[in-house]
Amino acid sequence: MEEKVVKAIQDDYPEDFAWCYGCGRLNEAGHHFRTGIKGDETITVYQPEPEHTAIPGFVYGGVIASLIDCHGTGSAAITLHQKNGGEVGDGKDVPRFVTASLHVDYLMPTPQDVPLKAIGKVEEIHPKKFKVATEVYAGEKLCAKGEVVAVVMPQSFVTQASE
Amino acid sequence: MEEKVVKAIQDDYPEDFAWCYGCGRLNEAGHHFRTGIKGDETITVYQPEPEHTAIPGFVYGGVIASLIDCHGTGSAAITLHQKNGGEVGDGKDVPRFVTASLHVDYLMPTPQDVPLKAIGKVEEIHPKKFKVATEVYAGEKLCAKGEVVAVVMPQSFVTQASE
Repeated sequence: MEEKVVKAIQDDYPEDFAWCYGCGRLNEAGHHFRTGIKGDETITVYQPEPEHTAIPGFVYGGVIASLIDCHGTGSAAITLHQKNGGEVGDGKDVPRFVTASLHVDYLMPTPQDVPLKAIGKVEEIHPKKFKVATEVYAGEKLCAKGEVVAVVMPQSFVTQASE
Repeated sequence: MEEKVVKAIQDDYPEDFAWCYGCGRLNEAGHHFRTGIKGDETITVYQPEPEHTAIPGFVYGGVIASLIDCHGTGSAAITLHQKNGGEVGDGKDVPRFVTASLHVDYLMPTPQDVPLKAIGKVEEIHPKKFKVATEVYAGEKLCAKGEVVAVVMPQSFVTQASE
């Protein structure tokens, strides 16, 4: 049975942070990645669209990279929110993260006919900096591994954006 | 004046390899990244669409990763094609590459109102494996650095795809 993320951290991102092409709930054209908790790991489930091909039948690597990217910032946001006493879905303001670096190892061609599942483990490397190790599965097949270093969004970024 | 890639390696990809969401000329919904030669470097120019936002005014990191990805495989294809005696735009069959790994360092928020320019340097690390170091500029601003390891597409990949 397909897994589903019921409570996602992106549902509680502030409105001005909800336009991300990857995970913004207000960006109609975007992927709408949604990241939640599963045990002590984080999870994002995504069914690629028919146009997201590398070659016919296989998923485009850029979409896998995008999934790992937003899954990474979402996982970091969940972790810091919990550290601050919050819970996913509590409706409180959640921390915003940006990606400092993204790494993806493509292990095998990723079939396009099943939902992708990104599973993450988060490590704090600084109070404002988290490393998220992610495995991407298509069904039971481990197709890619990723690592994101996510940092709390600098105030300068927010200021630039609202100018 | 905006630079333009006149002759692109992707224009000569075989038809069954031209459906990539990033750089396939036959994928109507895709980005249509096009990679050419500029001196001893490779170049891809791309204007992100309005929906490709991280936060309003800035480009989504997943699109930058996608640009670096296809620029990497395209740059590797150019390099091997030249090594085999070909030229970009000569209409001959060009080698196909897939991405083994992708790394992106995001250096600053990437403004969305100017075309992005990916500039690549290619290094052969094995006759079938190339490393492409890429810098992504928005106007004059260096916004991201990337590295792709691209390998000649294994026959098994092609066979799987045509099954």
